[in-house]
Amino acid sequence: MDLCVVPIGVGVSLSEYIVECESVLKDAGLKTELHAYGTVIEGEWDEVFAAVKACHEAVHAKGAPRITTTIKVGTRVDRAQTMEDKVASVKDKL
Amino acid sequence: MDLCVVPIGVGVSLSEYIVECESVLKDAGLKTELHAYGTVIEGEWDEVFAAVKACHEAVHAKGAPRITTTIKVGTRVDRAQTMEDKVASVKDKL
Amino acid sequence: MDLCVVPIGVGVSLSEYIVECESVLKDAGLKTELHAYGTVIEGEWDEVFAAVKACHEAVHAKGAPRITTTIKVGTRVDRAQTMEDKVASVKDKL
Amino acid sequence: MDLCVVPIGVGVSLSEYIVECESVLKDAGLKTELHAYGTVIEGEWDEVFAAVKACHEAVHAKGAPRITTTIKVGTRVDRAQTMEDKVASVKDKL
Repeated sequence: MDLCVVPIGVGVSLSEYIVECESVLKDAGLKTELHAYGTVIEGEWDEVFAAVKACHEAVHAKGAPRITTTIKVGTRVDRAQTMEDKVASVKDKL
Repeated sequence: MDLCVVPIGVGVSLSEYIVECESVLKDAGLKTELHAYGTVIEGEWDEVFAAVKACHEAVHAKGAPRITTTIKVGTRVDRAQTMEDKVASVKDKL
Repeated sequence: MDLCVVPIGVGVSLSEYIVECESVLKDAGLKTELHAYGTVIEGEWDEVFAAVKACHEAVHAKGAPRITTTIKVGTRVDRAQTMEDKVASVKDKL
Repeated sequence: MDLCVVPIGVGVSLSEYIVECESVLKDAGLKTELHAYGTVIEGEWDEVFAAVKACHEAVHAKGAPRITTTIKVGTRVDRAQTMEDKVASVKDKL
């Protein structure tokens, strides 16, 4: 999953809310990788989405009245594939 | 939520898989509105996300080996707001 | 294209900025359909993306210091397909 | 910008098309960072979007009849901010 949580109504600086979200993901024991426009998360469906819900709850609890989040989520049943596999399959051919 | 499910590895015509997904959403009793690049869904977090998971399961069961989905999800704790409210708040000012 | 423009740093009510954006799209003569989580736009690549840029400029000009936008954009070279075709191909099978 | 290009109708393995896209971005001289669910790109609006168009053209030219792309794009007029700034502003608070 690629997760990008955007709190609305808290001004222009969002990093402290993103930090809140990152803490939730770490506490959930999920494998994550922060990049400049979101966080890539690897894991089983229920755990990953439970963490996304916990992020929204934490960001609201920190004071954000409104949140808009963009998620890309990929599943496949043909074979296992990690975050590293996906990046390597491209980098190996560059 | 705005949901856009894209099955991969099933050729260029995707509508029968989208139909599968729409059926899942209807069976879940959710309020939805289909548009040309996804489906807007209104409801409580757990019900909506349970339906998204059921969509992935149904699309895989129909034969898609891989799926990539784009989701926009909005929550707010300051006030209630329906799909119709959001559209009306813009159209009233046009 | 599905376009969702989110101004940041202007409080919790965003509709007046979305209205600004809708006006830009209309002025560009583009075929659009507003839904509860964005606007579907049909047209040629250059015209559509020029309008997206004009939206950002208009929303900044109206006072938003920061904007985050989510776009889904589809192109195909095998056949022509309108917004209505896409919706009909699903609804006909429901 | 976060860019995720998905060719449709070319089977289940997409990496060779993503490689095509990465080459286009490099040839454009853009600053990029590949992650497991897309590529983060930093640059001026016109150059970045010209490269996105060139990606679509290259992926179609390589044989993909249909493409669906998800883009997150952020602009701000209050201050300059690089990809590294965004990541650091979060990591410094973790």
